[in-house]
Amino acid sequence: MADPRPVALDVFGGDKAPDAILEGAALAIAQGVPVVLVGDTDLLRGKIPRGAEVVHAPEIVGMDEPASTPLRKKPNSSIRRIFELVRDGSAQAAVTCGHSGAAMASALHVLGSIPGVDRPPLCTVVPRGDGGQLVLLDLGANVDCKPQHFAQFAVLGDAYARVVLGLERPRVGLLANGEERGKGNTQVRAAFGELEGLDIGFVGNVEPLGALRGECDVLVCDGFVGNVMLKTVEGTIEVAGRVLREELRRRPGALFGRWLLAGGFRRFRQRTTYDSVGGAILLGVDGVAVVGHGRADARAVASALRYARSCAGSGLVAAVRTDAAKRLVRLPSA
Amino acid sequence: MADPRPVALDVFGGDKAPDAILEGAALAIAQGVPVVLVGDTDLLRGKIPRGAEVVHAPEIVGMDEPASTPLRKKPNSSIRRIFELVRDGSAQAAVTCGHSGAAMASALHVLGSIPGVDRPPLCTVVPRGDGGQLVLLDLGANVDCKPQHFAQFAVLGDAYARVVLGLERPRVGLLANGEERGKGNTQVRAAFGELEGLDIGFVGNVEPLGALRGECDVLVCDGFVGNVMLKTVEGTIEVAGRVLREELRRRPGALFGRWLLAGGFRRFRQRTTYDSVGGAILLGVDGVAVVGHGRADARAVASALRYARSCAGSGLVAAVRTDAAKRLVRLPSA
Repeated sequence: MADPRPVALDVFGGDKAPDAILEGAALAIAQGVPVVLVGDTDLLRGKIPRGAEVVHAPEIVGMDEPASTPLRKKPNSSIRRIFELVRDGSAQAAVTCGHSGAAMASALHVLGSIPGVDRPPLCTVVPRGDGGQLVLLDLGANVDCKPQHFAQFAVLGDAYARVVLGLERPRVGLLANGEERGKGNTQVRAAFGELEGLDIGFVGNVEPLGALRGECDVLVCDGFVGNVMLKTVEGTIEVAGRVLREELRRRPGALFGRWLLAGGFRRFRQRTTYDSVGGAILLGVDGVAVVGHGRADARAVASALRYARSCAGSGLVAAVRTDAAKRLVRLPSA
Repeated sequence: MADPRPVALDVFGGDKAPDAILEGAALAIAQGVPVVLVGDTDLLRGKIPRGAEVVHAPEIVGMDEPASTPLRKKPNSSIRRIFELVRDGSAQAAVTCGHSGAAMASALHVLGSIPGVDRPPLCTVVPRGDGGQLVLLDLGANVDCKPQHFAQFAVLGDAYARVVLGLERPRVGLLANGEERGKGNTQVRAAFGELEGLDIGFVGNVEPLGALRGECDVLVCDGFVGNVMLKTVEGTIEVAGRVLREELRRRPGALFGRWLLAGGFRRFRQRTTYDSVGGAILLGVDGVAVVGHGRADARAVASALRYARSCAGSGLVAAVRTDAAKRLVRLPSA
């Protein structure tokens, strides 16, 4: 039976908050996702979608404030309160499209990390050329990583691929600039040995092209490199779309071609941007914490809410707890 | 007047060598590029395109051999000999599509680096969404970099953008996971200060999406990250093309749509793969050294030959020498 508890949504996070966030909540509610809106109720008066619960959290963390703001200066901020609802059992998952640093700091502070996980990574899926999904992590939570952090990401990504994507034995690759052992920078070369020692389906070094073609199911890297890779995918799609539309404009039958393209492009973007899954999940914290894109529109917010509920319903957190206890707790930790 | 000296081409480098290489040479010669073929003349008998010169170099470096092979074990290899022709003044530039590690080691060993440059980076251009070109470096020559190496890459990329692309005051960005100062991993944060101190148009941290949109002309990063970014652009284009074709297949008018797309896609790939410029240039060595893609076909080989000649003709090496003397020689060097 589906968990009847709502997904907690930070109404005051995101470039288009609160309107797009509220609109997204209304969409998700119409699709059967229970939602609790978290924010300043004075500002929400008259705007609350039918069927939504509301929890008051009067403080708002701005994009220019430090990530520690919800921990130190604004304990009553919506970006922190959503995670407290998860911790207390009142919500099954939390979603924010606000300040991602503040979101990660709050989630870690409030929910705590699962034993064996030193540095919770951000994780999302990217569509592969073979029709599969590539689980990519870390996307930016940890820009400087030690070998054991790569090992932790590998175990977390493996759990995600099994539980959320339903793969039996995910192929886990280490992102590198070549497939041979010995490729990579100092960190990656050191991580290789750690990943080899794990009881997961480690397939060695994988290059971006190979990963996007489908040579692995999970791709592990540090948060700096993962962020560059994810944003390069997004940037290339944007640029490619523009170039392709320009090329088509020069050809006969251009109007018809553009009509043909319109639907194709929409679906293509849906399959190739992480708006389609609605955001990234912070793995290794003791609860479901989803960080949406700052630019999220109503559709992306609704996706994030559905995604958060499906992660919660999949039993991901329990699986991570079991796997971390089995595979990570005895690893040396820095 | 155009330099009458030929471009030296390694005939035995590349997945499709020697046939695609010879075919590419014939194409380039027909386009007016003088070419000297370097390789084992016994193996070339009867295959030499009309108008090509030939220089004998009996040894071949395989893809599974160490990068130091042409320096230690195979001094008569074609991948080394091409750079000796440049050093001796018999050729204006050198091109290989072979073992890129061996190519870089040979170029550095034979040509030497320009004073002020510790670690010559590989550099290429990627098309931007605004119609401009993004100069990206390092692409993989140096996977672990110190702050002063980033500064060297910035000066070299700036020289390239001025001399080869004709920009007056290129905007030089530092690749990071956010635009604010203080973003980036440890290396990038340390590099920021070095770049700030240079007499170039430094615009601060730039994210991949911003760079691909046109926020800078030159994007500086370490060779590991640059390799990931370049290969992610290539991989995304491949995957996006496949997904888009699939989407179009599901729609009415599919055949017409595909016909429309065919030309658009071809030009789009031409504008978005680095086959279109034919390869990457190793900047900071004392001569023009172009490393083509291992998968290069005849068209890509011809592009690389034209590209090498145009770099040589632009006076790039002299400009790099002047800039390095002015901007780098006094910098602390590791």
